[in-house]
Amino acid sequence: MTDLTAALSAADAQFDESLERLFGLLRIPSISTDPAFAADCRRAGQWLVDELIGLGFDASLRDTPGHPMVVAHHDGATPDAPHFLFYGHYDVQPVDPLELWTSPPFEPEIKEIAPGRKAITGRGAADDKGQLMTFVEACRAWKAASGSLPCRITILFEGEEESGSPSLKPFLKANAEELTAECALVCDTGMWDTETPAISVGLRGLVGEEVTIHAADRDLHSGLFGGAAANPLQILSKILADLHDETGRVTLEGFYDGVEHTPAQVLESWNNLGKTAESFLGEVGLSVPAGEKGRSVLELTWARPTAEINGMWGGYTGEGFKTVIAAQAAAKVSFRLVGKQDPDQIRAAFRAHVEARLPEDCSASFSPHGGSPAIQLPFDSPMVTKARNALTDEWPKPAVMIGMGGSIPIVGDFQNILGLQSVLCGFGLTDDRIHSPNEKYDLTSFSKGIRSWVRILQALSKP
Amino acid sequence: MTDLTAALSAADAQFDESLERLFGLLRIPSISTDPAFAADCRRAGQWLVDELIGLGFDASLRDTPGHPMVVAHHDGATPDAPHFLFYGHYDVQPVDPLELWTSPPFEPEIKEIAPGRKAITGRGAADDKGQLMTFVEACRAWKAASGSLPCRITILFEGEEESGSPSLKPFLKANAEELTAECALVCDTGMWDTETPAISVGLRGLVGEEVTIHAADRDLHSGLFGGAAANPLQILSKILADLHDETGRVTLEGFYDGVEHTPAQVLESWNNLGKTAESFLGEVGLSVPAGEKGRSVLELTWARPTAEINGMWGGYTGEGFKTVIAAQAAAKVSFRLVGKQDPDQIRAAFRAHVEARLPEDCSASFSPHGGSPAIQLPFDSPMVTKARNALTDEWPKPAVMIGMGGSIPIVGDFQNILGLQSVLCGFGLTDDRIHSPNEKYDLTSFSKGIRSWVRILQALSKP
Repeated sequence: MTDLTAALSAADAQFDESLERLFGLLRIPSISTDPAFAADCRRAGQWLVDELIGLGFDASLRDTPGHPMVVAHHDGATPDAPHFLFYGHYDVQPVDPLELWTSPPFEPEIKEIAPGRKAITGRGAADDKGQLMTFVEACRAWKAASGSLPCRITILFEGEEESGSPSLKPFLKANAEELTAECALVCDTGMWDTETPAISVGLRGLVGEEVTIHAADRDLHSGLFGGAAANPLQILSKILADLHDETGRVTLEGFYDGVEHTPAQVLESWNNLGKTAESFLGEVGLSVPAGEKGRSVLELTWARPTAEINGMWGGYTGEGFKTVIAAQAAAKVSFRLVGKQDPDQIRAAFRAHVEARLPEDCSASFSPHGGSPAIQLPFDSPMVTKARNALTDEWPKPAVMIGMGGSIPIVGDFQNILGLQSVLCGFGLTDDRIHSPNEKYDLTSFSKGIRSWVRILQALSKP
Repeated sequence: MTDLTAALSAADAQFDESLERLFGLLRIPSISTDPAFAADCRRAGQWLVDELIGLGFDASLRDTPGHPMVVAHHDGATPDAPHFLFYGHYDVQPVDPLELWTSPPFEPEIKEIAPGRKAITGRGAADDKGQLMTFVEACRAWKAASGSLPCRITILFEGEEESGSPSLKPFLKANAEELTAECALVCDTGMWDTETPAISVGLRGLVGEEVTIHAADRDLHSGLFGGAAANPLQILSKILADLHDETGRVTLEGFYDGVEHTPAQVLESWNNLGKTAESFLGEVGLSVPAGEKGRSVLELTWARPTAEINGMWGGYTGEGFKTVIAAQAAAKVSFRLVGKQDPDQIRAAFRAHVEARLPEDCSASFSPHGGSPAIQLPFDSPMVTKARNALTDEWPKPAVMIGMGGSIPIVGDFQNILGLQSVLCGFGLTDDRIHSPNEKYDLTSFSKGIRSWVRILQALSKP
């Protein structure tokens, strides 16, 4: 029996316990954006520290001005083994609207979601607790099979990924020497489909912005003032409606500066994946591509920038009716960035767009919520090739290189602060409902995810 | 001492107790739109029944499918005295946002709001508890001075005015014989300014509508789906932004059908009132007239129709940021009507406007919130002239005939169901903050309001 075979067998043998451990982590409501859950975030971090110490890591909880980091080191089997930095995050998204969950978000269960297809349900199952635990459990399998790990590993688990990572950059800067390695491994991305693993090589950036329109100094009766007084909901609707033109393009001044034309051969390779608008959108009950006209859904979500309204509120929103003209109205807006689009320039262009549409007697206030440029990773570095081959060995179909609609700012920070390239490999699926009610992680994503990391660790340990 | 002088003296002598009684009513949180306050609504109605029985009325609480009506009769001093129906409402608006109140909404106080100017504060102080109590206390003054009332009086107090009056029409129809009189007196309107009383002769109608846009079958991650999936907040923003053109006109098909040109002499009389955009809007921190361009603020609020967004919500609206594309978004929209605009036609035009702007894979649902046409009352009926002269006797400046931005559907119902004209006479002021935090009613509105009704009752009792 080779080391690899033994480690894979160990992963299979311990799988029921792996699942129990993941459930333990999923039961902790570590919602980072809501201050009410700060103690739970800390508890989730400490839970991971304890697990890692049990695996022979030198692990500790590191305080930050926000939620703590988990940092852990393992020397590996030989002193000259290659050294990797693994990243995941233990915090999760809020759970509202709670009434749409079919079982409580922090009481994980195994459910049959289709004939022969089971999934782990609960907030964080896929984003990112289930994913980071694939790596932890792969380390455990290697430890069980060989007594050590085939590589030197440093682990960094963050607790603020879902709330803009305010402490991350300062922490990387302050601990650059301790965190450096040959390459970073990040497990927060998805597969192409249930049979096809993927390595993500393009990540859209993100600019988040909250805007509040201020009109009268109090809420007004629409009978007394309607027709004469400025209505901030009307002004905000116009501002937001004007973000797109009739072809779906974003209208902000200079918005497309730095957006590169996607090469024809890349578009062709994506077209060959056979993903139609109907199949992509059909999973969520839609069928017509929104956004820029004349582009495939893969290009729209992997290679094109967007402007989205993520939340909006103002006036009376309770039961019944209230004929009020609100004093203010607000929206949370975000922009997905590609190529060399500059987050600061786009934030400024949005603010100018708002200001240009304000009546003289109204005002706007803004608060920024994170900004990170897009990232393009190599298609063909040695690390990527090794990981790709290891994935192909595990899954029914060969691994593919894909773009990614979401943003993982950590990849840019690793590049800029630690000088590290990243390999992005994860086992999420598009129907995981991350950030939504009834989040799930396929049982196969978890079991074969663990086995994938067992294989990747061995592949990367070779010169 | 004449009867009138005696009754006015009695009103003055009892004023401190009048105030105590009003405070008692204001302490009952009779919010009709929120089912949680149903028992309080009933309690407010019963409080009024008890007061009226104490004044010699034959008064009772009448159940409806919603909140109960208060109905009371008093025969007056002589069997052939003219007979009037007085209307007010004991329910109040919700109080949110509660944090903007400087004192609790249901703990009324007397505050000095400007040098020498005092006001009664609390939800309902002006709309409509303070107003209806001016009439109740005027009856009490007549009773104290002369032992009876100079007219026959029927009183109808409603408990659903702020929630669309669902029970009112059926109740009027079922009790038409009992409620009929020579003319209705309604106290739910305002003065021109602190020195100038007013009788309102034009009332805008109202159509309320709630619309919900449905897109994906779940909330989506904007990274995975942004740029490809329909965003209901974006669709709704566009729908609402499109309600007005660049000149401020409402764009709904056929919206201006039945809107009459305001006669030049009426516009001129309004211009002579000297109300500028600056003085009208300045009271609420604004300065630029919104809505249709090139019209005075009085014309805009008294004689022109509007479309207003009264509330809007969707997506993530909590602390922090969530990069979600919502499954649905909703708004409460209302239209103020004038002339012969047809509420049903306007509701249908709005729904068509929404449907025409929906992507194929999205849908809209609607729920109606009341609809009533505009009403034009006579400028010069004998009743109006008597009331006008009585007001002029009480206040520093002569009474004026004004339009009104708000809608009081009861006036149309009295006309259509009971065959009664109404005289609209109230003592509210534009800075009363009705429907807003820190609602107030000037102490003078209350004291001279009582004295005004003492005078009007006598004027109306004469042939």
